[in-house]
Amino acid sequence: MLKKNVLVGQSGGPTAVINASLCGVIQQGIAREDRIGTVYGMIHGIEGFLEGWYMDLKAELSLEELERLRVTPAAYLGSCRYKLPEDLAAEVYPLLFTKLEKLNIGFFFYIGGNDSMDTVSKLSRYGQKIGSDIRFVGIPKTIDNDLILTDHTPGFGSAAKYAAATVREIVLDSSVYRQKSITIIELMGRHAGWLTAASVLARQEKGDNPALIYLPERPFSLEQFACDVEKEFQRRRSVVVCVSEGIADSEGVFLCEYGEEKLAACMGKERAAVKDSQKEEALLDNFGHKMLTGCGKVLERFARERFGVKVRSIELNVSQRCSGMLASMTDIEEAQKAGQVGVDFALNGETGIMVAFVRDNQKEGYDLAFASVDVDQVCNQEKTVPLSWISESGNDLTHEFVDYALPLIQGAVFPPLMDGLPEYLIRR
Amino acid sequence: MLKKNVLVGQSGGPTAVINASLCGVIQQGIAREDRIGTVYGMIHGIEGFLEGWYMDLKAELSLEELERLRVTPAAYLGSCRYKLPEDLAAEVYPLLFTKLEKLNIGFFFYIGGNDSMDTVSKLSRYGQKIGSDIRFVGIPKTIDNDLILTDHTPGFGSAAKYAAATVREIVLDSSVYRQKSITIIELMGRHAGWLTAASVLARQEKGDNPALIYLPERPFSLEQFACDVEKEFQRRRSVVVCVSEGIADSEGVFLCEYGEEKLAACMGKERAAVKDSQKEEALLDNFGHKMLTGCGKVLERFARERFGVKVRSIELNVSQRCSGMLASMTDIEEAQKAGQVGVDFALNGETGIMVAFVRDNQKEGYDLAFASVDVDQVCNQEKTVPLSWISESGNDLTHEFVDYALPLIQGAVFPPLMDGLPEYLIRR
Repeated sequence: MLKKNVLVGQSGGPTAVINASLCGVIQQGIAREDRIGTVYGMIHGIEGFLEGWYMDLKAELSLEELERLRVTPAAYLGSCRYKLPEDLAAEVYPLLFTKLEKLNIGFFFYIGGNDSMDTVSKLSRYGQKIGSDIRFVGIPKTIDNDLILTDHTPGFGSAAKYAAATVREIVLDSSVYRQKSITIIELMGRHAGWLTAASVLARQEKGDNPALIYLPERPFSLEQFACDVEKEFQRRRSVVVCVSEGIADSEGVFLCEYGEEKLAACMGKERAAVKDSQKEEALLDNFGHKMLTGCGKVLERFARERFGVKVRSIELNVSQRCSGMLASMTDIEEAQKAGQVGVDFALNGETGIMVAFVRDNQKEGYDLAFASVDVDQVCNQEKTVPLSWISESGNDLTHEFVDYALPLIQGAVFPPLMDGLPEYLIRR
Repeated sequence: MLKKNVLVGQSGGPTAVINASLCGVIQQGIAREDRIGTVYGMIHGIEGFLEGWYMDLKAELSLEELERLRVTPAAYLGSCRYKLPEDLAAEVYPLLFTKLEKLNIGFFFYIGGNDSMDTVSKLSRYGQKIGSDIRFVGIPKTIDNDLILTDHTPGFGSAAKYAAATVREIVLDSSVYRQKSITIIELMGRHAGWLTAASVLARQEKGDNPALIYLPERPFSLEQFACDVEKEFQRRRSVVVCVSEGIADSEGVFLCEYGEEKLAACMGKERAAVKDSQKEEALLDNFGHKMLTGCGKVLERFARERFGVKVRSIELNVSQRCSGMLASMTDIEEAQKAGQVGVDFALNGETGIMVAFVRDNQKEGYDLAFASVDVDQVCNQEKTVPLSWISESGNDLTHEFVDYALPLIQGAVFPPLMDGLPEYLIRR
């Protein structure tokens, strides 16, 4: 059988394990040299590839470098946020397929989230239309854990572990003084609260902080929040609150969009004029998503005015998605395996699919199998936290969530150290 | 010889290793049971002790718990920000000494920074005045590394390691897209730039990001900043900038205090009116320090307007001081030793002193000795980064700083894990 080459790319926001999946694709590409020639990597995803940017990963990476790639966070190949046109008659499609033919590509892998699966879907549909035999396979990744038809997504476990470990440390930090205080921790998550939910794992014992956890799956009410905090103050001096960036009220207005006027009204006050400068502008990214920021700050102002105690808000930053030193080994291994399995699926002739995780809930422990699912069904859908996993009070998670998330954060990573710091693999 | 008891407390902001020093004091207290009865811990520092809050650490902590205490961040005993009156005739002094006598305290240890050394100084001076034989010893700690008469302070090494590791990961994260971008990382440091300087260690190879590093030791100019960024864009797409929260211009105005008007003027623009709501208010803490926040946001707005590229600012949060999982083992061991040595000094009859670190610069490798220094000379002084360690351009560090800081971040910590997360020792 004539050998064909692999083309693999990374797209969307970085995670701690997107390179582990890349590593898995390369390793399986090497292992299956009976069918696969070389493994090319797109530099800056499909956008860079269209401009002729790619590299020969099999030739350029040593085995030692592959090992380092596996534990290096962010996106080794570079990423993009490039949306292919809806219209399959657009001229970019033949242009792209000509480039694929030139490199003798037989297997195309795209590691990414929702929007990347949209790319896989369009390419496989166009390929089908023109009778191409190139196989298009999506390897999932997103810290948001919001892809459907898969038990969870690579990247979530590490982000959850980082969030839980960091919240646990902030809880310690916030409880050193005996004065009453409120600490508000804002975590990533627009519509799906998975990552914020993981902060429940930060509790070392039952009843520990974080006392209150609010997800975007349930409407948020400032009044209820004030009641909840009031109640917590009856049993503790330091109240730590975790919120998703995307919490919104019952009318669907994001907390981070609350302007001065609205906030003043919520505080039961009249203010002379609305200050335009204080209105948060909701920007749109290339995919039309609202770019949110700042609900922590809104809550901080509200809580300070309402309770008159020390209030601090902390926005967990990009380390949530790119911390390599606090990554979950389970997550890294699963992400790597997803890449390997993706190659196997493609070699078996599958196309237009995404690699999915299937958890065996019958077994005692945690056991994971891999399946292929129709990528058309995955893209542009969003999986949120089941409402039944959120406590009735709306400010906590049930044990079902804990049982679900705990296996995903197990195992520590030890990247090779140089001068006391991790030595990551960087494309030069 | 009649046995006396130890009283130990923690004060000021938490660090990753303040508990390692506490552990050292307890361990040495146990080891020297020929002279020491028990080891009491003040709960919430001197403020809590004055209200009768203390615990018997020797009786209450098992050896296994002591080992966990050593690697637990924040302040196990709780902390305070309590300033003793300048006037030694104030009534709090006899009140406090009566309490000390009642507990048969012979040795008093206070683990803290600048302000805590001020407490040690006052207590030892009062003790001298009344002819007390209680010995007062300060154990240094501060992530700011700004205490004089000591080579460095416990807490700095871990904070530096966290900062360097995190900046390295943010650098990876910020370089995944090919679009031009500026990433501004704001680190802790009001007047001393030690921690921000440590971000130079994030460079994996010469020439890597962070490209620009600004400390409060040198006056900051927005115009020079713009020139520096412009120059960097000639050689890279992604420019990562690290700044201390306390950078100020040549007139001494903190960047974070720049209001709309000033910023507009710097951008060469006239605006109709000054928006009061945008003026940052500089709050004062109990010790009269200005509480700063937000120079990263000011720079973000300036850079976005000036360069028209993607700009993001990231404020490294309290994890800088309380990350136990990224702590430096060298730092933990030195902090522990500082506690042990402090007990030895006190047993030798020394009082009114602080334990200091002395580096042997003659030796090839890194070697540390311990000394006692007059606490009166330490308190209310500040050690800043030598100007000769800042590059002439004012936006980088010289190799002298690297040689100084690198030994302090060596060695990794492995706190005991429970369900994938560190199991810290928490006072219940």
